[in-house]
Amino acid sequence: MNDSVFVGELSWKEYEALVADGQRVLFLPVGALEQHGHHLCMDVDVLLPTAVSQRVAQRIGGLVLPALPYGYKSQQKSGGGNHFPGTTSLDGATLSHTVLDIIRELGRHGVRRLVLMNGHYENAMFLVEGIDLGLRELRYAGIDDFRVVLLSYWDFVKDPQVIAQLYPDGFLGWDIEHGGVFETSLMLALYPQRVDMSRVVDHPPATFPPYDLYPIDPSRTPAPGTLSSARGASREKGELILEVCVEGIAKAVGEAFENAP
Amino acid sequence: MNDSVFVGELSWKEYEALVADGQRVLFLPVGALEQHGHHLCMDVDVLLPTAVSQRVAQRIGGLVLPALPYGYKSQQKSGGGNHFPGTTSLDGATLSHTVLDIIRELGRHGVRRLVLMNGHYENAMFLVEGIDLGLRELRYAGIDDFRVVLLSYWDFVKDPQVIAQLYPDGFLGWDIEHGGVFETSLMLALYPQRVDMSRVVDHPPATFPPYDLYPIDPSRTPAPGTLSSARGASREKGELILEVCVEGIAKAVGEAFENAP
Amino acid sequence: MNDSVFVGELSWKEYEALVADGQRVLFLPVGALEQHGHHLCMDVDVLLPTAVSQRVAQRIGGLVLPALPYGYKSQQKSGGGNHFPGTTSLDGATLSHTVLDIIRELGRHGVRRLVLMNGHYENAMFLVEGIDLGLRELRYAGIDDFRVVLLSYWDFVKDPQVIAQLYPDGFLGWDIEHGGVFETSLMLALYPQRVDMSRVVDHPPATFPPYDLYPIDPSRTPAPGTLSSARGASREKGELILEVCVEGIAKAVGEAFENAP
Amino acid sequence: MNDSVFVGELSWKEYEALVADGQRVLFLPVGALEQHGHHLCMDVDVLLPTAVSQRVAQRIGGLVLPALPYGYKSQQKSGGGNHFPGTTSLDGATLSHTVLDIIRELGRHGVRRLVLMNGHYENAMFLVEGIDLGLRELRYAGIDDFRVVLLSYWDFVKDPQVIAQLYPDGFLGWDIEHGGVFETSLMLALYPQRVDMSRVVDHPPATFPPYDLYPIDPSRTPAPGTLSSARGASREKGELILEVCVEGIAKAVGEAFENAP
Amino acid sequence: MNDSVFVGELSWKEYEALVADGQRVLFLPVGALEQHGHHLCMDVDVLLPTAVSQRVAQRIGGLVLPALPYGYKSQQKSGGGNHFPGTTSLDGATLSHTVLDIIRELGRHGVRRLVLMNGHYENAMFLVEGIDLGLRELRYAGIDDFRVVLLSYWDFVKDPQVIAQLYPDGFLGWDIEHGGVFETSLMLALYPQRVDMSRVVDHPPATFPPYDLYPIDPSRTPAPGTLSSARGASREKGELILEVCVEGIAKAVGEAFENAP
Amino acid sequence: MNDSVFVGELSWKEYEALVADGQRVLFLPVGALEQHGHHLCMDVDVLLPTAVSQRVAQRIGGLVLPALPYGYKSQQKSGGGNHFPGTTSLDGATLSHTVLDIIRELGRHGVRRLVLMNGHYENAMFLVEGIDLGLRELRYAGIDDFRVVLLSYWDFVKDPQVIAQLYPDGFLGWDIEHGGVFETSLMLALYPQRVDMSRVVDHPPATFPPYDLYPIDPSRTPAPGTLSSARGASREKGELILEVCVEGIAKAVGEAFENAP
Repeated sequence: MNDSVFVGELSWKEYEALVADGQRVLFLPVGALEQHGHHLCMDVDVLLPTAVSQRVAQRIGGLVLPALPYGYKSQQKSGGGNHFPGTTSLDGATLSHTVLDIIRELGRHGVRRLVLMNGHYENAMFLVEGIDLGLRELRYAGIDDFRVVLLSYWDFVKDPQVIAQLYPDGFLGWDIEHGGVFETSLMLALYPQRVDMSRVVDHPPATFPPYDLYPIDPSRTPAPGTLSSARGASREKGELILEVCVEGIAKAVGEAFENAP
Repeated sequence: MNDSVFVGELSWKEYEALVADGQRVLFLPVGALEQHGHHLCMDVDVLLPTAVSQRVAQRIGGLVLPALPYGYKSQQKSGGGNHFPGTTSLDGATLSHTVLDIIRELGRHGVRRLVLMNGHYENAMFLVEGIDLGLRELRYAGIDDFRVVLLSYWDFVKDPQVIAQLYPDGFLGWDIEHGGVFETSLMLALYPQRVDMSRVVDHPPATFPPYDLYPIDPSRTPAPGTLSSARGASREKGELILEVCVEGIAKAVGEAFENAP
Repeated sequence: MNDSVFVGELSWKEYEALVADGQRVLFLPVGALEQHGHHLCMDVDVLLPTAVSQRVAQRIGGLVLPALPYGYKSQQKSGGGNHFPGTTSLDGATLSHTVLDIIRELGRHGVRRLVLMNGHYENAMFLVEGIDLGLRELRYAGIDDFRVVLLSYWDFVKDPQVIAQLYPDGFLGWDIEHGGVFETSLMLALYPQRVDMSRVVDHPPATFPPYDLYPIDPSRTPAPGTLSSARGASREKGELILEVCVEGIAKAVGEAFENAP
Repeated sequence: MNDSVFVGELSWKEYEALVADGQRVLFLPVGALEQHGHHLCMDVDVLLPTAVSQRVAQRIGGLVLPALPYGYKSQQKSGGGNHFPGTTSLDGATLSHTVLDIIRELGRHGVRRLVLMNGHYENAMFLVEGIDLGLRELRYAGIDDFRVVLLSYWDFVKDPQVIAQLYPDGFLGWDIEHGGVFETSLMLALYPQRVDMSRVVDHPPATFPPYDLYPIDPSRTPAPGTLSSARGASREKGELILEVCVEGIAKAVGEAFENAP
Repeated sequence: MNDSVFVGELSWKEYEALVADGQRVLFLPVGALEQHGHHLCMDVDVLLPTAVSQRVAQRIGGLVLPALPYGYKSQQKSGGGNHFPGTTSLDGATLSHTVLDIIRELGRHGVRRLVLMNGHYENAMFLVEGIDLGLRELRYAGIDDFRVVLLSYWDFVKDPQVIAQLYPDGFLGWDIEHGGVFETSLMLALYPQRVDMSRVVDHPPATFPPYDLYPIDPSRTPAPGTLSSARGASREKGELILEVCVEGIAKAVGEAFENAP
Repeated sequence: MNDSVFVGELSWKEYEALVADGQRVLFLPVGALEQHGHHLCMDVDVLLPTAVSQRVAQRIGGLVLPALPYGYKSQQKSGGGNHFPGTTSLDGATLSHTVLDIIRELGRHGVRRLVLMNGHYENAMFLVEGIDLGLRELRYAGIDDFRVVLLSYWDFVKDPQVIAQLYPDGFLGWDIEHGGVFETSLMLALYPQRVDMSRVVDHPPATFPPYDLYPIDPSRTPAPGTLSSARGASREKGELILEVCVEGIAKAVGEAFENAP
């Protein structure tokens, strides 16, 4: 028997057997193609939630669907802005309808437990909408026991001791962790060949006014595209983050579906 | 001359004269019809950004468009969830297209400066999308100098001293400020007749796991629908908040449009 | 107990109790932001159906939802055309989907009786479509006892004696009653501070060929934007109209829902 | 040279030569598949505007596009309602987008003058929307001299003497002329083989309250589906109507495009 | 009794009686307005599937709905390309939604057996999508016994002997049969007055690389717009094709619905 | 310098430098998550066009975008049908809009040459539509020199000698090459660990009537989901196919963009 957790690597007969009773948890990583500074590749937001999904799936006997490789438009305060070459984003409705379509199909397969593992901050509300549209359609089709968990893996790094280890000089918020210590450390732990620490541009954390201006003023984003410096990143930090996320998510997902009303 | 700041109270000739040079700032308050606990009415998210818009417009010579009275679906962690009777929400695409349509029309009028004053947390990303779609269409129509500021008025209450005055026992985050001290205080300052402090249900702040489950588990939302207790609310706090918001936004909006690239 | 008829002024608990048995009638006023000549403000089409809804709701124990403040594009023969500054209109699909979304939500609340009170001529068919889409979705959700009444309040002024009182020199048709005697009288009765009779431009009734040309020829619309002169308007006429509408609609709505199949 | 006025009967080379200078008027008949009582076939609303378009085109050197055979949903007060077997209607957006697509293509061909000849009352506003969307897109594509005339052919029968000839016992309004004297007379003049006068059901004119109820109450529509009796119909009346319409429309269309701004 | 097979020529009472038991087969011809070379008119793709539908319906007691006169965008390798004047095409979504709407309505009528008779190569996948969307909605409405057959009539000409009769010099594939021997022969058999053999441009069969380029290079399409020469066309060949198609489709349709699961 | 051809593996600065002059060719592989019999994994349609894209990009100095992992609904005659567990498909509009969004973004980056490398038969027309919508929007934005090549890699295997090597017992058409010799050989050459030849089910080629029935009759698809037997597959055949495709496509793409009008 093929023991891959990736749905794409299974034959349909293997998949059919695995999802038949509706109890198995499927993970859909959702990412983006987005600039992440001079030192990181552009598919960070796909690689990381896929890696986390894979590890959680291995622990809890889940399966991982092919990741969505394009996401919602990068926003200045969380991703630098959508004006960079390379950043390639979808309209909100396109992303929401992709999620809707996948939920409709999973419902047909007999799946009843889905985790959307978000890797790109800006996706979140359009995933919410896709889930709502998907569950609505399933209800019209007579399926009312489909459950979805939506999460962004970084929300599981909350332990102050862990935060202190990652940011010995103080944590400045997830908002500006675009291409910074957090993502870079994870990439060093998982895909070191796609990180070039020699190109990290050390700059002060980006600061923004409490509003958004459109079209954005590109000069407000630090030139390299990162919102905080990745200089403090390390493989060890990445391994710590990964373990914290995988353990936390594995536990949370189990509870979520067990306790769902 | 009619000196109302409300566009709806002007004749078209008055409006035409006011917006002719494209320098005037228009405010579009965006709210929701949403439960806000036992002690507040359901149009809080419309009343508050409208009141702030009005006051800022009065200071800077702006105009206020009719508010959007329905918003995006209430989320459990920020609004209690969309399962309450009374909460009446739009699909994301409906909200985004409303914003798109209004921007297209304002562009035709000659307006070039718009502020979207958000009063409902869940609206934000669908407003972003509406703005992006609107500016895209304006560019197709040959208009590339239209500028939009998007803000949520509560983001202007950042001064630690103010926070300390509002929350002498410690601030727990905007997330759970749904129907709590912040909104209730503003309502006491602005629309006391729509607050019934005798019906405030005092409960511990809502706590949520670091993920969302859909369909939500209603039992996770405190029964009254608020996410934190409004017991500490007062008219004085509301007046303080209002002054801080109005002053901060008036200043920020002026700078934003002056400095826009 | 809060005795407001406006849903937005109620708490969700009050609303829940009122709509629980599905017998209560909800009114959704639908208007527009549209030029109404030099002498009237631009939110006439929101104010008037809201005022009528309020009064009917008070008589029959109904509730009034927040009005839709933006409507379909002004047409030359009924509203002067969509080329005026200030007139701010939605695409048809945006309006229809707003109605669809609201119906879907009301169905969830347990509401089964809705009146769409139209105040802007051009809205009508897009409201029809929104209703059809909404009832279709409710059927998919298993709800088939939701009933909607769609009306334009002016259609209840049909008594020849009333018409004769309003138009002693002869009635020229509702088509050209844009910003004319009818709407101006109602505004004088309800919101006299938003009428400036000194700015009424007295012009012959607009005449149009039996076709529409797009893009319109603005020179065919009388310069002030009205289609007939408001000179004959009076507060007394407005009060008469109001009474006729409120009485007629209260009676009609009751019958409509009682007799619905 | 092929002298057909029907675009579908021309080769593309013939068509190309005819529309090259952008001066030629194209007619797009828009109909419906809709019940018209026991005595008429269901494609009346396609046949009649096509016949009128053909005759006007012959007079003024125009061309006739293939008619749109399906229209918007039949409404009770103007078409009996959409509950009849046979009546086969489109969603509003489908109809509007069809018009948009055709306008986009005609613009590419070099056409600049289009007449939408409506044969189904309920279509009108969705045609307006299709025109607006189409002209908007053409503007984005740099084409701003495309002109559209929208008309319903019956609006050209306005001469009181003609009305008196058609309705010697008094005219009751176009509203209830569904399958009545007007359409039946035209069919007798143009397609007598599709009329079976022996099946005309003579019933009093339909009367409706000044509102619409959804879902409709089918019992309010006269059982045969007509809204007034066709008993007074005759071939002679049909020929009179046809002549009045063709003459009036030919004249109006010429003027409309000559004088367009 | 009216014995027409065309739904549009029936009264609704006749139609109602015919479709009441859900066993009758309805045909929806789907065509295009598209250039077909110098010698053919532009509505070939509507006329031919309508003629085939009519004949099949006569044999098996079916009915023919009004044809869809506009289709999907002409592709260079199958229709010469969408750049010709006269070719007037729809967006894919417009075509799919038209099919969806018609299926929804037929389901309401009680029809359960529909044949989409395609006459324009490029339509096929958008008809597939329309069918899928239509059947999905019918399932939401509780109707799960609606069956659709989708076919392109030329796919029934498969007998090598027939092919040899039509193409004595060798058959080059359906791909390039645009305006060639096949369609021209059918037109000669059915509508000879719409064929002008004197204008046939004799050219070698079009050849294309194994990819598509957009925007297309018009110079790759033979100048007259046909993809192969129609010189070998004849009325006799057309009659043969017609008989083969009608017989094959009548048989296939009967079997398809009898054996449907 | 990072010499990966995968856009996702580049930093934005690397990408920016590579696409700056608009001459570089970008490849977008488009696949599906679809059953491919008992012996193949389900992401075959993503892996294969990605592998071909990678090799062609390496030869001609191109770049490969992240593949689209979900495609249009599997059709019975080309993919077995969309009823299998595991097959996870999108609505046509979702796929088309994804392509539209990506084209819009690439246009912003300065890219002017895009190849859509299709790996799933059913995608083709929805990619055509996405391209058309994308180029239309770019034109509105003033970009008219963007060129797109659309191809399915198997269309480059046309040499009769190659066909004879692959199918010594005769070639039966691409239609039924779903999970058969062609795809299986390629997978053996590229990803042998994802093929289990011991599970190949040897069955006669699938045969279908010349029409499609919806909902499909699953019993017409061979039980394993393949449409022809993969027994004749071999690594050597896969290597031959790969070389033929890569060489042919590299040559064709170069010519296509050089010669584009």
